[in-house]
Formats: sequence, C-alpha cells, structure tokens
Amino acid sequence: MSSDRPSGLIAKKGLELLTFGTPNGHKASILLEELKEAYGTDYVYQSISIMENIQKEPWYTKLCPNGRIPVLVDHDKGGLAIMEGAAILSYLTRNYDPKHLFSFTSDPELSHCEQWVAWQHGGLGPMQGQANHFYRLSKERIPYPTQRYVGETERLYGVLDAHLAERDYLAGAKYSIADIANFSWVNVACFAGIDLARFPNVERWWRRVGERSAVRKGTAVPSESKITNEPFLEQMKTDEEFRRKEEGFKEALEKAKEQYGYKYSSP
Amino acid sequence: MSSDRPSGLIAKKGLELLTFGTPNGHKASILLEELKEAYGTDYVYQSISIMENIQKEPWYTKLCPNGRIPVLVDHDKGGLAIMEGAAILSYLTRNYDPKHLFSFTSDPELSHCEQWVAWQHGGLGPMQGQANHFYRLSKERIPYPTQRYVGETERLYGVLDAHLAERDYLAGAKYSIADIANFSWVNVACFAGIDLARFPNVERWWRRVGERSAVRKGTAVPSESKITNEPFLEQMKTDEEFRRKEEGFKEALEKAKEQYGYKYSSP
Repeated sequence: MSSDRPSGLIAKKGLELLTFGTPNGHKASILLEELKEAYGTDYVYQSISIMENIQKEPWYTKLCPNGRIPVLVDHDKGGLAIMEGAAILSYLTRNYDPKHLFSFTSDPELSHCEQWVAWQHGGLGPMQGQANHFYRLSKERIPYPTQRYVGETERLYGVLDAHLAERDYLAGAKYSIADIANFSWVNVACFAGIDLARFPNVERWWRRVGERSAVRKGTAVPSESKITNEPFLEQMKTDEEFRRKEEGFKEALEKAKEQYGYKYSSP
Repeated sequence: MSSDRPSGLIAKKGLELLTFGTPNGHKASILLEELKEAYGTDYVYQSISIMENIQKEPWYTKLCPNGRIPVLVDHDKGGLAIMEGAAILSYLTRNYDPKHLFSFTSDPELSHCEQWVAWQHGGLGPMQGQANHFYRLSKERIPYPTQRYVGETERLYGVLDAHLAERDYLAGAKYSIADIANFSWVNVACFAGIDLARFPNVERWWRRVGERSAVRKGTAVPSESKITNEPFLEQMKTDEEFRRKEEGFKEALEKAKEQYGYKYSSP
C-alpha cells in the first residue's frame, strides 16, 4: 500500500476496499480475508485516515456520498461503489461466496442472518459508538448521555448473551456474516466501558470467532488496531497510567448511573 | 383489531405485523400496504404499545429477542418471526414482490437500494432518534448532545438532499424500499428539530412519496400518528401554546450550537 495521502482509486480490476482500523472497517476486511482464504479472491485496500478527513474529499464522496468509511469498489463490475457495512457484506456474499460458506440461501437461516446483521448495523454499532464518545472521547464527561449509551450498549450485550446461550453462532448452525458484523464491535467492547466478563456467552463466542485466521488478518487491515480488547486488556495490566485513567472513566460511569438511577435490564 | 392488551399472536395464516406508530413501524406497514395494493397480499396487525412495555413481555421477546417494535410473523412459513426494519423490508420484497415493483434484481440498482436502506437503518434512524431524545424528550435540555445529534441529523439530511438533487428516487429510477425506509424518518423531521425547508430536494421527494395512497395508509397503522410533519406543522399554526414550547426547543438548540461552535457541513 502507498504511504502517500490517498487521492483516488489504485486498482484497475478486482476488489478495492477503502477503509480504516475501526469496527466498521473490520467488518468488510474480515469477510474479504475469509473469501481470500476460501476462494483465493484477492483484494487491495487503502487506508483512509479519518483523522485527516480523507473521507470528506471530493474523490471519496463521489464513491461514498455519506463521507464515511468503508467503501467497497468492484472494478470488475464497472467500478460499482458500495457504502454501508451491511450492504457491503450482502454484496460480497451474493457475488463472491458461491458455496455459501458465510451466508445462507433459504429461510429461516437467511432471514435470521439478515436480522442479526441489521441488529448490529442499526443498534449495536451506533449505540456502542455513542458509548465510546461519551465514556471516553468527548472533551467533557457528561453524566446523562454517558449512562444512557453505555447502559443501552449493556442492554444490547444482554440480548446477544441470551441469544448465544444455546447457540455457537448468531444465525443457523454456522459462522456467517452475522457473526462477522457483530464480532467487529464486540472486539472493541472494552473501549466503550463494557465488561465482557458480565456476558459469558458473548465472551466465549468472541474468543471462538477471534481465533479464526481470517479474523486475525482482517482486524489488522489497514494496520494493527490498538483499541481492540486484547491490546486494551494487556495495557491495563502493564501500563499503570493507562489503568488509572481507565479507572477514572469507570468511576465517572458508575457515578452517572447512580445519579440517574440506572438499572441494568435486558432486553 | 382487538382493544385488549395484546398477549400473543392473533392470526393463523398469512402475515402478521406487531407494530406501533413510530417511523420504524411505518417502514413495515407502508410496504405491507403497497403489497396489498399491488398484489392483494393481506396482513393483520396488532398495536404493541411501547408506553406499556408490551414489547418486553416474554411472549413478545420470544418473537423479537431485542424487545423492540416492529416484528413480522409469517404464519405461512412456519411462523417465521423477523425483527429489524431492514431485514423485514428485505424479506417482504424477496417473498411477496414477485414483479419487483419495490425492489431490484441486479446491480447497480440492487446494491444501491441495499446501501440506502442500510444508510437509514444505521445512520438516519439511530441519529434522528437521538436528536428526538435530546431536542425534545429527555427531562433536561443538555446542550452538548443536543447540538451533536441534531447537527448529525442535519448532516444526514444534507447527504440525502445532495443525492436527490438529480434523482426522483433514492435507488435506480423507481420508488423502492430505499424510499420507504428513508421516508418514514423524514416524515417525522420536524419532531427532531429539523427544518425541511433547508433541504428542498428532500422536501420535494418527501411530498412526492407522501402522496402515494399506500404511504398514507401505512403511516396510519396501527393508528393515525400525531408526530408526523403534517399534523405537526398544522399545530404550529393553530396552537399558540404548542408553538411557544416549540420555539423554546429551537432556542435551546441554537444556543447549544453557539456554545459548541457548531457549523453545518455535509457530508
């Protein structure tokens, strides 16, 4: 990959992913790595630094009118550009998963898969994203939205935990894009102040999915992420200053929950 | 429909929608009304009052593990239950739109349709929902999240407005589930503090879609909504107290934007 600032597409044929090291980027890169392992489907990627606002440049928004990452371009389909994770997962399985290794062809599995992809896309992703913001990223710690979004994210983890109590995977009897979509966000649970140990079925499933080699490769696209659970938990053990700062966030959350009488309940 | 508190499914065959008068409910009921007009496909519905928390009762969460509305049950497919608007729209067009009047079969239209359904499901819906909360519904008016969510919703309307500058419909050359999904939220824009007049292409499209008889019927399921733009704007003209309260919300928003140096920009 070029280290220069991206200024346009780089491939002439095949698949090209414009992405960044966030859960929404990982959804697409994990599936692309799975397809590469299973079928030899190749792809190239470019890192679109959202810190440098490359996703707002005209060449990019022509491909992705929403100005967000990721976007997938299929040069073999006339340069068709697709934004939105759920649409990218659907496109890739429809066109590049002929043996349906990661997707389904008939109900109830097909609809169950779609509903859990949609559940991540409209619930877990947006709400955990807001939890990230108020728990950690925003300049001020504001109690009400902090407990609102971490609390809603906990509710959603409770839904996932109940669903995984009697299942190994989210839809049907196999690993699929429903798992890929949700794994990508569960894989950054700590960053949002979520204690995975409270959701043992989710934690087991997260470990199981995380062991796949394509998942390891996909979460390292465009580069190794520092905000995923593993490096996060490691840093908690080894970096005293990091741990103290983390405990400050946790304390602010607990106070916010108390202030607003938050009580965990799911669903 | 029964006026008793719902306690289980009421149909034995065909389609049954468990819903409430919100944008997420309207997505499903509009498409069901379109299918009824086009093909004679019948359905029954029950009103699931989210004020009474019926969506959290065990019989309901067995059908919808997320405990939210709507859920679609197909009694002719072994009682298959599907949650999440995007999955419901996909299921209904796949199974009940054989002439593809509201859906597509090939790219680029198929993927474009999926991406705009997903864009609503993961962006417009969740963010406008948060704008509703902080602009109007939460007990306190908290400046930072108010300008954050109304601002992000405005950014999203800007994306839609730019996309509709040269098009009559969101995907391909015809009205489809991409329009239904997005219409349902644009149809409650005022409630979130959005001034539709600032987005003239969106406004034109909203009026065009809103004229369809199935859309009129679908937005009246399970009962006529009071939070959609039309009754809202009417009340602004006729109800002095309502108008004054609204102006208070608007003023709080403007102050919040000023306090945090908000500048409109899209995408």
